[in-house]
Amino acid sequence: MFLVEGKRSVEEAFKRSELLKVIFLDDNSAEEDHGDIDLSFLDYYLVNSRLMKHICCTENPQGVAAIVKKPLWSWEELLGTGGLLIYLDQVADPGNMGSILRSCWALGVAGVLLAKGSIDPFSPKVVRSSMGAIMNLPVFQNVSDSQLDMLSDRGYKFLCTDINGGTNYYSVKYKRQSLIVIGSEARGVSADLKKRCEQFINIPSNPQVDSLNVAAACAIIIAETWRQYQEETGLA
Amino acid sequence: MFLVEGKRSVEEAFKRSELLKVIFLDDNSAEEDHGDIDLSFLDYYLVNSRLMKHICCTENPQGVAAIVKKPLWSWEELLGTGGLLIYLDQVADPGNMGSILRSCWALGVAGVLLAKGSIDPFSPKVVRSSMGAIMNLPVFQNVSDSQLDMLSDRGYKFLCTDINGGTNYYSVKYKRQSLIVIGSEARGVSADLKKRCEQFINIPSNPQVDSLNVAAACAIIIAETWRQYQEETGLA
Repeated sequence: MFLVEGKRSVEEAFKRSELLKVIFLDDNSAEEDHGDIDLSFLDYYLVNSRLMKHICCTENPQGVAAIVKKPLWSWEELLGTGGLLIYLDQVADPGNMGSILRSCWALGVAGVLLAKGSIDPFSPKVVRSSMGAIMNLPVFQNVSDSQLDMLSDRGYKFLCTDINGGTNYYSVKYKRQSLIVIGSEARGVSADLKKRCEQFINIPSNPQVDSLNVAAACAIIIAETWRQYQEETGLA
Repeated sequence: MFLVEGKRSVEEAFKRSELLKVIFLDDNSAEEDHGDIDLSFLDYYLVNSRLMKHICCTENPQGVAAIVKKPLWSWEELLGTGGLLIYLDQVADPGNMGSILRSCWALGVAGVLLAKGSIDPFSPKVVRSSMGAIMNLPVFQNVSDSQLDMLSDRGYKFLCTDINGGTNYYSVKYKRQSLIVIGSEARGVSADLKKRCEQFINIPSNPQVDSLNVAAACAIIIAETWRQYQEETGLA
């Protein structure tokens, strides 16, 4: 189980009521508007502000928190969707991880795979900045080489972001059954992983600039995959 | 003046030597490779690790920090470029602000304007996550209504991100002489500011999802403006 803090995120937990175990409300805010959280449907604990500060990890808790069961996702079902996958190679910053999960959920990614050594996606700051994505988007931790082999066997095309070269991200034709590898903040993508990749993609930018933030780069690339998908399927 | 921490950011300060006032080096790392920071060209202070921890705001300082003069930018020169401007309406999170500045620097934005109430772009965490952008990209704080009037008078087109509607961001034709308004994390764009805007732009996304992270949304939109600009000018 994991902790979910703040109104928006607890609203998301409320929508996934099968995962929601306990809600804590600050007794000072019990009478306030709790948005989509309908308190008549569930048990909750009224706690005082001091206790709320102990429960929460933010300095100024928003007066509502919840304990939520980790969602269980099926690897076979994920592969069955044939949808776009993102593989994060040791992304370490919680804000970046949360922002990436949020973008993936918003922009049609079927699932996110995390290499060993990535930050725990259920840690409080990631949960907070994912804004509910962690409860709704299939995320697989400690993804193994044999799982990557399985994806290759099923016809997944491996692409890799590369700050030093490769094809412009908007000149690439993305098929949905792709896995896009995004490197860590500090070291980019590991050499072993690069060997698995058929195509390298690059975001052309001011040559003076070292690189983009990893969450910004990921957003730009998946927005382009989503744009292409919407145009193909006539949703645009 | 402001504090710059970490190897990459101090390297950027070194490239803008007219701004660089003082370098501090941890005496444990004085013999290490300092990348592009050529110590033979400047005075530096060797300090012990305890003092370094006092100077820096990160928990684990990278062994190098600098005091840097705030760059001075000319409003008239900025307007003279006729380049794309981003206006941030009270962005509050330092990581978001830093990431936005970094994306703007990388993706051809001429300058960033900050509304009153935005986080200080020279605060340590913004500086760190901007990865040198704050020393290279014109940033104007506390931008007034009369400055916005001036932009209108000079022919700038005001566009505004809108999570509730507007034109798909990739169907908009961006002229360089535009100002794109990006709202805050909590409240979006203020009503007064919306009145100034001719066009509203939207990033189509999964309707279940409330919104994207502000830095991710900004990255997606300016990447599209940059893509169009490169195609027009034949740089692509």
